[in-house]
Amino acid sequence: MSERLDAETVRVWGERYSNWGRWGPDDELGALNFITPGRVLAACALPRTGQVISCALPFDRRGPQSGFAGRHNPIHTMLADGGDALAGAQDGIPGGFRYADDAVSMPLQCGTQWDSLAHVFYDGLMYGGRDIKLVTSSGARANSIDKMKNGVVGRGVLLDVPDHRRVEWLENGTPILPDELDACAEACGVAIESGDIVLVRTGMLTRCLREKSWAGYCGGHAPGLSIHCARWLYEREVAAVCTDTWGLEVLPNETPDCFQPLHMISLRNTGVLFGEIFQLDDLAAACRADGNYAFLFAAPPLPITGAVGSPINPLAIK
Amino acid sequence: MSERLDAETVRVWGERYSNWGRWGPDDELGALNFITPGRVLAACALPRTGQVISCALPFDRRGPQSGFAGRHNPIHTMLADGGDALAGAQDGIPGGFRYADDAVSMPLQCGTQWDSLAHVFYDGLMYGGRDIKLVTSSGARANSIDKMKNGVVGRGVLLDVPDHRRVEWLENGTPILPDELDACAEACGVAIESGDIVLVRTGMLTRCLREKSWAGYCGGHAPGLSIHCARWLYEREVAAVCTDTWGLEVLPNETPDCFQPLHMISLRNTGVLFGEIFQLDDLAAACRADGNYAFLFAAPPLPITGAVGSPINPLAIK
Amino acid sequence: MSERLDAETVRVWGERYSNWGRWGPDDELGALNFITPGRVLAACALPRTGQVISCALPFDRRGPQSGFAGRHNPIHTMLADGGDALAGAQDGIPGGFRYADDAVSMPLQCGTQWDSLAHVFYDGLMYGGRDIKLVTSSGARANSIDKMKNGVVGRGVLLDVPDHRRVEWLENGTPILPDELDACAEACGVAIESGDIVLVRTGMLTRCLREKSWAGYCGGHAPGLSIHCARWLYEREVAAVCTDTWGLEVLPNETPDCFQPLHMISLRNTGVLFGEIFQLDDLAAACRADGNYAFLFAAPPLPITGAVGSPINPLAIK
Amino acid sequence: MSERLDAETVRVWGERYSNWGRWGPDDELGALNFITPGRVLAACALPRTGQVISCALPFDRRGPQSGFAGRHNPIHTMLADGGDALAGAQDGIPGGFRYADDAVSMPLQCGTQWDSLAHVFYDGLMYGGRDIKLVTSSGARANSIDKMKNGVVGRGVLLDVPDHRRVEWLENGTPILPDELDACAEACGVAIESGDIVLVRTGMLTRCLREKSWAGYCGGHAPGLSIHCARWLYEREVAAVCTDTWGLEVLPNETPDCFQPLHMISLRNTGVLFGEIFQLDDLAAACRADGNYAFLFAAPPLPITGAVGSPINPLAIK
Repeated sequence: MSERLDAETVRVWGERYSNWGRWGPDDELGALNFITPGRVLAACALPRTGQVISCALPFDRRGPQSGFAGRHNPIHTMLADGGDALAGAQDGIPGGFRYADDAVSMPLQCGTQWDSLAHVFYDGLMYGGRDIKLVTSSGARANSIDKMKNGVVGRGVLLDVPDHRRVEWLENGTPILPDELDACAEACGVAIESGDIVLVRTGMLTRCLREKSWAGYCGGHAPGLSIHCARWLYEREVAAVCTDTWGLEVLPNETPDCFQPLHMISLRNTGVLFGEIFQLDDLAAACRADGNYAFLFAAPPLPITGAVGSPINPLAIK
Repeated sequence: MSERLDAETVRVWGERYSNWGRWGPDDELGALNFITPGRVLAACALPRTGQVISCALPFDRRGPQSGFAGRHNPIHTMLADGGDALAGAQDGIPGGFRYADDAVSMPLQCGTQWDSLAHVFYDGLMYGGRDIKLVTSSGARANSIDKMKNGVVGRGVLLDVPDHRRVEWLENGTPILPDELDACAEACGVAIESGDIVLVRTGMLTRCLREKSWAGYCGGHAPGLSIHCARWLYEREVAAVCTDTWGLEVLPNETPDCFQPLHMISLRNTGVLFGEIFQLDDLAAACRADGNYAFLFAAPPLPITGAVGSPINPLAIK
Repeated sequence: MSERLDAETVRVWGERYSNWGRWGPDDELGALNFITPGRVLAACALPRTGQVISCALPFDRRGPQSGFAGRHNPIHTMLADGGDALAGAQDGIPGGFRYADDAVSMPLQCGTQWDSLAHVFYDGLMYGGRDIKLVTSSGARANSIDKMKNGVVGRGVLLDVPDHRRVEWLENGTPILPDELDACAEACGVAIESGDIVLVRTGMLTRCLREKSWAGYCGGHAPGLSIHCARWLYEREVAAVCTDTWGLEVLPNETPDCFQPLHMISLRNTGVLFGEIFQLDDLAAACRADGNYAFLFAAPPLPITGAVGSPINPLAIK
Repeated sequence: MSERLDAETVRVWGERYSNWGRWGPDDELGALNFITPGRVLAACALPRTGQVISCALPFDRRGPQSGFAGRHNPIHTMLADGGDALAGAQDGIPGGFRYADDAVSMPLQCGTQWDSLAHVFYDGLMYGGRDIKLVTSSGARANSIDKMKNGVVGRGVLLDVPDHRRVEWLENGTPILPDELDACAEACGVAIESGDIVLVRTGMLTRCLREKSWAGYCGGHAPGLSIHCARWLYEREVAAVCTDTWGLEVLPNETPDCFQPLHMISLRNTGVLFGEIFQLDDLAAACRADGNYAFLFAAPPLPITGAVGSPINPLAIK
């Protein structure tokens, strides 16, 4: 641990933990490839109670965004509504049929979401060695989220770190190391398997909801995964990793000269799908209640053509 | 069948096939209540191959909308992209981290979607007897789609009507009657059960994709469910019904003096969730291939607060 | 001044200072009718220096909106840019032609703007006695801003109240009374004439820019016009009145039981055009410099069909 | 005229007709610099009748855009309306005050508009020799339209080419040459002067409105200015040039190997402001009526920070 972590480390580890080419030159699914049909079937066998639990934060103007990186909260507007019916604006529709319609305008990264494999890059390349020139104002011509439309379904595992530490939430700046992930899993009676979707709860979102303040949530100091998880994610063949934080990684980052190093390594090189701003409180309560931390998980992205991410409503089926 | 069908029929049948109050005065889930935890568990036991198949049309500017009812196709824009990285706009981010971000602006009814129970009304009321005054420019204060965030998961059944008829697609204006739904199910070796999510393929979307033209798809003549399906949906306790058409019902409607009568009865009174613009071709091919037309189905709506619908990526897990 | 001001006063004064019908039953221009061609010609004769001065605040994400009334600041996105050119995304355009394109999403009331005569109403009616049922999700079918597309051009007069009081800005809650408007005009060597566009500076925006904080600007306490100005606006035949505040009127309002009473009287009944969030500092400096407070004024609204307001860039030509 | 016109011509002429550096290294106004205060004063002396005439097309969903270059027509939505008032959604506002609010989402190039000096580039540079790297997803850091907020006011001159030719409109593909512009001006009793804003009517928009079809209007064949106007614009010191077409230039372009060569020369190098999609019919009728083709012209852009264009409502004051 006396190792100095810097931008150079990131590049070395990126090469070391790379899955580029592992599934052929045309692969745009990355670590989702670990979720084989067999894994899906095994995951379907997990539910014991038939409970379905959403891991999404509501999408509305009270969301966490404050303008960081130009992101805003969802703007929901009505195109037709009950007031129109009252005003007679729909009187032309025969037989008394009246209706409401609506629209949303939202950054795809503004709430509970998947980062696609076109979301981050360095040295001019993204996952699979594809050129960042493929990602322009017209969208991503490779690695876009719509390529993952037949997913994400598999075994989900909740690692509830604050519960394991017997605290309400992790303090900002707290790194979560691989050993703790393993200890946490073991304590819950599960072992991470190839193709797992790992949901790591830090409690940060719980705290923000409790304090009724998103101050610092987006882009500020946060608990989160240590850069040392890069190897763990690679070796365990994790398909997707998700947290209840804005950026998944511990902030400030452990690499003073490099921003979000785990994104650089694990998303770009290992091809792991990243899920962020997950609301894991309901799921955590349910897991605590029945002692079962593994479940069927389904979080289909909207197949927005060329998108580099998607808002999602991730479901745990226990 | 010599019965005259009109706006009066709609009101009578609406009362006859009503589930208002069935699940208590506060219910906002409607027929989704039929999907009990037991039903969810039973659905999880269905998959045999581990295939996951999306039933969503791509969300992009080439979608079916042409302005009908003020709906437009999704507008996807980039907030940051590879070009920015090339231009040096991200040079301030340390360590070489570069990224892409994006946004979407879309009517919630513009593509593959759920109609919420606040989507249609008549005589001043929506599902559960709630006043349409609750649906204003600020959204729906009752029956909104976010109430269904812990869904929609259950048993899905595909009824491939054109395949059953040995045609490529049903012609516009073709009504699908309850008997045909039963015959189709029987031919596929399934029987509709309480809480089922019924996916009815008409082939209309197949035809539009084949002909590379959406002309008439939105709001024009279409094959679809007959108003006579209202009783069937009610008695079979169907949780959700979905088609590959714009409006689920046969158009022109069978009630010359009343628009979309099945919406009025089955959505408003029976509380059935309606799914529209489903892309059922991939699923139909898979069902034909293995002869298995029942599957685990998951189509979580985005919990957009107060929304009267949601774009979705419905997944069939076979 | 011992008169009790309440919602009843508003209705009485509304009737007293009404211009409904004054310009015929079809009129949708209200007090803009006072700007006759002769007035336009007279205004064109005013400029002495040829200076053109914008009274608009920049339209961007740093604007004053904080979510009050569901309004957000403008969201500007690029549809094509220099980065795309660098990435080769425009290489298909022959001859080296490269370009940038962009888009904006904005509430029409989010920055410097005109309120149309369809913006406020009471007792079910808006200006001209038109039913509010004409203003639905499809826009306003009467009194919309596009009806004013051949305007707003006329004589502008700046009344710089804090300068007249020898203070930097008026404190929140300070009402501006008609006498002060007259005194201010007289001190500047102008007299308000029929058809004038009156720009009243309170200094509130100056203070917000100085303090780099919009806290309270939108919907909070503010200096502004007293309800007593209703008679003055009516009798002087003012065509439009504008301030550097969010809502033109003093806040808290002088009518404890009635919100924005001057809007109710002068906009709805008198038909005066209201301009808000004007940046009057540059203009004030120029007027102070040359001692000339009357000028040619041009602030064309965007003719957005059915809109109840429009962002504008008001120009003073001195 | 036997000269071969190609991409090389464009570069040569671009250098020949360049105003880079003419107004100092920091200049971002280009040819607008020709509109001196004296020119503004002279323009103010032009009006004879006091008529104000809009040159804007309505901004709505029936606009000319059809998806070319990813542009769509304006989307206008209501944030509050009369229906809300009827539904009681505003009952919390004291004293009976009720209101409507709205929003727009629109490409800045979708209707009547100014192209900023950051709108086109070649060889990596835009007007003033500025690098296109300054134009990214965050907007233009130079040459953006907000720099022109204290404009555009000056003398406008209408050149009504079809009227001069005694035809209803010019056929698609018809180039307008400098000689014709001069002849047209002379016939109208005006001579182009330094700083003029030249409005060239082709009648194409008239035809589209007459035929109720925008087919081909955006990006298709069109009448318009010949590349030979580049010298004329430069030598006459025209500040801005505007047409009733989508792209100002004749299409197909006269340079088979180069798209929109006049943009490349006159906008990028000469720094002339380009106005497009002007509705010149009302103005043309008024000019024909009084025989006066020169007028005061005011078309303030919205100062959207970093924008490469702006929707406008250009006014002619006669």
